[in-house]
Parts: sequence; C-alpha cells; structure tokens
Amino acid sequence: MDPRQNQIEVISEPRQSLGQISHLALDIGGSLIKVVYFSVSRDDCTDREGESSANDTLGVFKGDKHPILEGRLHFAKFETSNINDCLEFISSRKLHLGGFQHHENLAKDKNLIKATGGGANKFAELFKEKLGIDLDKEDEMDCLVAGATFLLKAFHHEAYTYMDGKKHFVQIDQSNLYPYLLVNIGSGVSMIKVDGEDKFERVSGTNVGGGTFWGLGRLLTKCKSFDELLELSHRGNNRVIDMLVGDINGGMDYSKIGLSSTTIASSFGKAVSNNKELEDYKPEDIAQSLLRMISYNIGQISHLNALQFGLKRIFFGGFFIQDQPHTMDTISVAVHFWSKGEAKAMFLRHEGFLGAIGAYMSYPKNKLAHNQSMQIPLAASYAADPNYNPLNADKESMECSVYAA
Amino acid sequence: MDPRQNQIEVISEPRQSLGQISHLALDIGGSLIKVVYFSVSRDDCTDREGESSANDTLGVFKGDKHPILEGRLHFAKFETSNINDCLEFISSRKLHLGGFQHHENLAKDKNLIKATGGGANKFAELFKEKLGIDLDKEDEMDCLVAGATFLLKAFHHEAYTYMDGKKHFVQIDQSNLYPYLLVNIGSGVSMIKVDGEDKFERVSGTNVGGGTFWGLGRLLTKCKSFDELLELSHRGNNRVIDMLVGDINGGMDYSKIGLSSTTIASSFGKAVSNNKELEDYKPEDIAQSLLRMISYNIGQISHLNALQFGLKRIFFGGFFIQDQPHTMDTISVAVHFWSKGEAKAMFLRHEGFLGAIGAYMSYPKNKLAHNQSMQIPLAASYAADPNYNPLNADKESMECSVYAA
Repeated sequence: MDPRQNQIEVISEPRQSLGQISHLALDIGGSLIKVVYFSVSRDDCTDREGESSANDTLGVFKGDKHPILEGRLHFAKFETSNINDCLEFISSRKLHLGGFQHHENLAKDKNLIKATGGGANKFAELFKEKLGIDLDKEDEMDCLVAGATFLLKAFHHEAYTYMDGKKHFVQIDQSNLYPYLLVNIGSGVSMIKVDGEDKFERVSGTNVGGGTFWGLGRLLTKCKSFDELLELSHRGNNRVIDMLVGDINGGMDYSKIGLSSTTIASSFGKAVSNNKELEDYKPEDIAQSLLRMISYNIGQISHLNALQFGLKRIFFGGFFIQDQPHTMDTISVAVHFWSKGEAKAMFLRHEGFLGAIGAYMSYPKNKLAHNQSMQIPLAASYAADPNYNPLNADKESMECSVYAA
Repeated sequence: MDPRQNQIEVISEPRQSLGQISHLALDIGGSLIKVVYFSVSRDDCTDREGESSANDTLGVFKGDKHPILEGRLHFAKFETSNINDCLEFISSRKLHLGGFQHHENLAKDKNLIKATGGGANKFAELFKEKLGIDLDKEDEMDCLVAGATFLLKAFHHEAYTYMDGKKHFVQIDQSNLYPYLLVNIGSGVSMIKVDGEDKFERVSGTNVGGGTFWGLGRLLTKCKSFDELLELSHRGNNRVIDMLVGDINGGMDYSKIGLSSTTIASSFGKAVSNNKELEDYKPEDIAQSLLRMISYNIGQISHLNALQFGLKRIFFGGFFIQDQPHTMDTISVAVHFWSKGEAKAMFLRHEGFLGAIGAYMSYPKNKLAHNQSMQIPLAASYAADPNYNPLNADKESMECSVYAA
C-alpha cells in the first residue's frame, strides 16, 4: 500500500494546551478514504515574528504576540475497500491519540475524531473496535463547502482554468467569491450552489461519476487501480470506439445544428457496428472513451445547473479529476461549448481533499485560518506545464494557522 | 434477418396518378435503419364513405367525395452494420420502384427516395450502386419534428405516461400542443424545443444514448443484438453492481439532501470495491445497471433543458425506449424527481419511427394527413399491461390519408 501522501506546511498557533488540538480528520467516501493529519516538524521551527522562543520539547514556540507551532498538514488516501490499510496507517502513527506521539496529557475529547462522507456512519463501529475512537460525523456538504471556501479564500493559486493544454491560475476576488457552483466528483457527483460561507444548497448531482469510471473501467480493462486506469487513458484514442458525427454522416459536419464531424455523437457507439469483441479493443482506447464520456457528461450537467441559477463560475473538485489533462480538457470543453463561452470551468489544486479539510476545520477548538503572510512557492512556469501536479511536488507548502480557539 | 416489422393501416387518397405517390422513406441512423413503406392491402379495401367503388386492380377506390386507396404503412428496422439486409429487403419487394410492384407507369421522380439520418449522406453511393436510386436527403431534425407533431396531432392514443408499471394515455389538446421538448434517443440523443409546426430548435443533446447502451452492453455481456440486451436487462438486478446511497452510508438515507438509501449514488460503483472480475457478474445485472444509468442520465438532462426553457411536457422517442418498462420507469422517475413533479415524461407509441415518418411526409407530392374518421382499436386494458407493445400487435392500425397534392 503506497498512499498518495502529500504534505502541506502548516503553522499552528495554539492558544490552549496542545492536547486540545486535534490532529486527524477523515473523509470516508464510497471508493476512497481521504485523511488529513497534522504533525510537528521540528526542523521547520522558526520564530516567525522574531520574538518567539521554544518553550518545550513539543516544538511549540511562543512569542509575545504570536506563539507559533510549525508543522505540516499531511494528505493521504486509501481505497475504502482496503480500509484496514488506513486503520493500520493511523494506528502506526498514533494519529488517533489526539496529542502528539510523545505527549501523554490527553484531553477529554481526544478520542473523538472528525469524519465526513457516508463511511463515517458505515465504519463507525470498525473505528471504535480497532482504534478505540469515536467518529464524530460532520455533514458531507458542510465539509465540502467549508474546505472549498477556505482554499479559495486562503490561496492565490488555488483555482485555475484549463484550456488548450494550459493551466491559468485565476485570482479570486475574495469580496466577490459568491455565488459559485461547487461540483465534487467522488464516486457519485454532488453539485452545490454556494451563496455564502454558511449559505449553500445541494441543488443537483449525478450517479455517473468517479465510481462509474473506475467500476466500468475495471470491468472493461482489468486495471487494478484507479490511478492505473487514468494512466492508461492517456495513451488511448477514443475515436476507435466512440461514434463521431462524421462516422454517421459520411465524414461530414452536421453544421446546421453546430456539430462538427469530430464531435462524439455516441460514446461507445462504434462497439455496436462491427464484429469486434471486448478483447479486440485496446484497454487504453476503452479507458479514454470512458473518461471522455463521463467527464463530458459531468461538464454538461454542471453547466445546465449553473445556467439554471445564473452562476458563471463552476469549481470542480474531487478525486476523479486528479489533475488529469484529458479530464480537465473534456470538462472545460463541455462547459465552454454548452454555455457558449459564458461560464467557466475551474479546478482546485487540492481537489480531492475538500471534504477532509472541511472536517479538519470543524473541530470546535481548531480553526484552520488563512495566514496573511503565507508564501506559496508556485513558479509561473507551472501554468505552462499541463502535467504539473502540485500534490506530487515535494516542495509545495501552504502556510496557515491552527488556532485552538 | 428478421426485421421487426409492423404494420399500420393507411388509407391513401390519391389526387394524382398512383405513380406519383412515393412509397418508401428511410431514416438511416448510426445504429439502425428505419424503413417506412406503403403497400396496397386488397383485402382491406372498403368503401369508407359508402359511395366509393373499385376502379382498377390496384386497390384504388374512388368515391364521389373521397376516393380512397386502402393500404398499410409498414415499419421495419435493420442494423446499419447489416445494411445489405436492408438493401435486399427493399430490392426483393421492389419498394424502390416508386409505384406498386405490378404498376409499370413509373413517374419521373421514381428514383428519388426520401431519406434522413446521417446515413443518408454516408450510404448515398451504396444505394445508387445497388438499387439505382438517389437518396433525397431531408434534415434529421425537420423529420423528427414533422413525424412527432403529425403523430401527436393525429392520434388520441399516441402519447402516454408511465408510472408505477402502468401506462396512461394522455389526450393532447391540439390547440395547446406547443411548446414541448422532443427527446429522440437514437445512437446519440437530440433534444429539440418545438414551438410550432415549423418553429423548432435543437437546443441540446447527449452522446450517452442508445449506442452507448448497446456498445457498452455488447462489450460487457457479449450480447449479439440490441433486443437481446434489452431482454437480458429485465431479468437483472442493478443493485449488485451499482453503489447505492445506503451502501456508502451504512444502510442509512442521506435525508438532509433528499436521497434515500436506495438511490443510486454511483452507477457501477460497486464494481470498484471488491475483487470480482467481469465474468463474476451476471450479464443481466450488468445490462440492468447500464440501462438505468443511461435512462436516468437522459431523463435528468432532458429535465434540465425543459426547465431552462420553461417546458412542462417532454416527449421521448427513438428506438432506445422500445416500450421497455425499466427504461420508461427510470426516465419517468428522473424527470419526476428532478422537476419535483412539475414536468411530465411522455412516450410515443411510434417512438422509433418519428424520423422515417417525417421523411415519408416530406415528399412534395405526398401528404400523410390525419383522417378525422380514424378509429384506433386500442383497448383500455392496454393501459394496464406494461408489456404491451403496440408495434407488435397485428391488429393495430392507424388510419390516415396520403394525398398526392
């Protein structure tokens, strides 16, 4: 088990004892468990205000004005079907113990771990039994919105558009963030109209989502993991299997209704019209056809919902996207085509962890807040590299503060 | 090759010579070729006005007021990939010769056959070469709308709703027919906003349609025909493969956002979370999951488009539907759920032949018109039989007139 593990640097500012800062939050979805946890990074300890000093062995620095604990917010994911790997991961790192590994002063609420996603109900007993912790369920939509809104407010380089193979980071005017449509593509898809920090509604969704891609993809290609299936799809050519307008029309456009000959008329439609069996198709072509079908469909339904509510901005999150060029390109094209360029598809750098970050922020005694002095080492060149995945970049860090309110 | 062949009784009222009445029209789609042709039915000859009399051996009866030629409008379909079967069918019946088999007085335009669908371009050369006929291409959207509007105006029992396993025929007030959304589910799906007989626009569509069902279904189940796949889907249980809200949520509803535990959260989502391979699933379960995924998706996108334009009535046509309970139920549930009961999904008895009927009506010298005295032998009991397929019923007949204008 090799979880995709990423680290974001965090500056923690404890106002109460360390034992009251919770360090673990979970988003347990139908297909994936997303884990967010905080750890002290002793090497990173610095006196950011020039007036702090170390006061104990826990890496806590207290300055006169701003006591600062530096550490990292880590991200990891596990397949829900391999939940034991996740339990073992948490157990071996003692993440469920509330304080730090070597801190014995456990507070009352140390065994309450914030969790969201449907699995917070389903696996509550398992977590109690194996780790002795109680999952404290937070509403999934609440967490998604809290996570997305925090990220959009906190980071200049969180949201980006993707067109013609290029990312363009979008500066979000914080005073003009709302309203927006948040589309979270997990196993299924939720579409949430967000009008304000605490004012939102799940207006739509679709059952054709990441679970469909992965599930159908496994059946059709025998891929063993979601990542493998995605990787496969890059090398494919969907035109081998999809029926294009030109295939039906003798190579011609159907220009009267605005469809070019290369538009997909029917996903998988060519698998009908010849005598090939499943094994005669390349798995990579199938994977790409599937990816385009689902991405385009989600883009279209998202656009139609945005249109209904007059929303011009659609932010796409969730683990389905995985910073994949074909996925983002297809979603972007769908939104652009159907909205005639009126609406904009935007993607979030921390796409897969919206719910988990939201859950982390839901501890009544923790507040993950924007640190005004944050510096994000994002080079401008990222914008030109379609394959850049910030979550894979070792050096990426986001600075923010955990307040024990 | 055993085409699904159905007959609808037609009363032809020639105002010019028989040779100028065209008897064949085609709708050549990506997956299916739909054929409409007229033949004299000597046995059916009757003097409908009580004043007509036979005037020749062609089955033409001319009354003082209403000369009547009785015959039948036949319907047949072929797989586009087996187009040679279609050519053979037309050739063996001499349907392409303009007049009747034993009528030698061929008119000038006898070799121009009306055709619609993308294949009217693609296969034009083939028809010329094999049958010596020129396909006279009619726009696909024009034909779909002409066919649907004719059927809706002409027949009291054309449109019906489907809920809880029951059909309910809907009386369409002819003065209040417009506007409506016409959703034609062929290989792909077209959504047309119809505001009047000649006032309509293709406002949307989706590449997830009948070709997707059939194509993916073939790959996953090895079914050899669309009908076989549909039949298979009846016996399946989609819950074996689909991830339901309850599966994610530990059996609970997600009532805060209005989702019951049995709602499909992610089509094919369960194929992710265990170690089963394709061959471990029953083909019928796969077929039903696929059918529900696509039907629901089309229902949802249709609703969103109807909502955008304030349309309360959505008519679904196209060969995908095939009068199938699961298909109609899923589409109906989707439209009902998403519109909160505001919009109504309706189905058309002659669903698959809208385009072909429209093409048949497009001959400048033919007009297929509503005969006021039509009588449709539809028993009320049909409404209670979810499996009743009017197109399979020998005795069904629709009376209308072909005017040679």
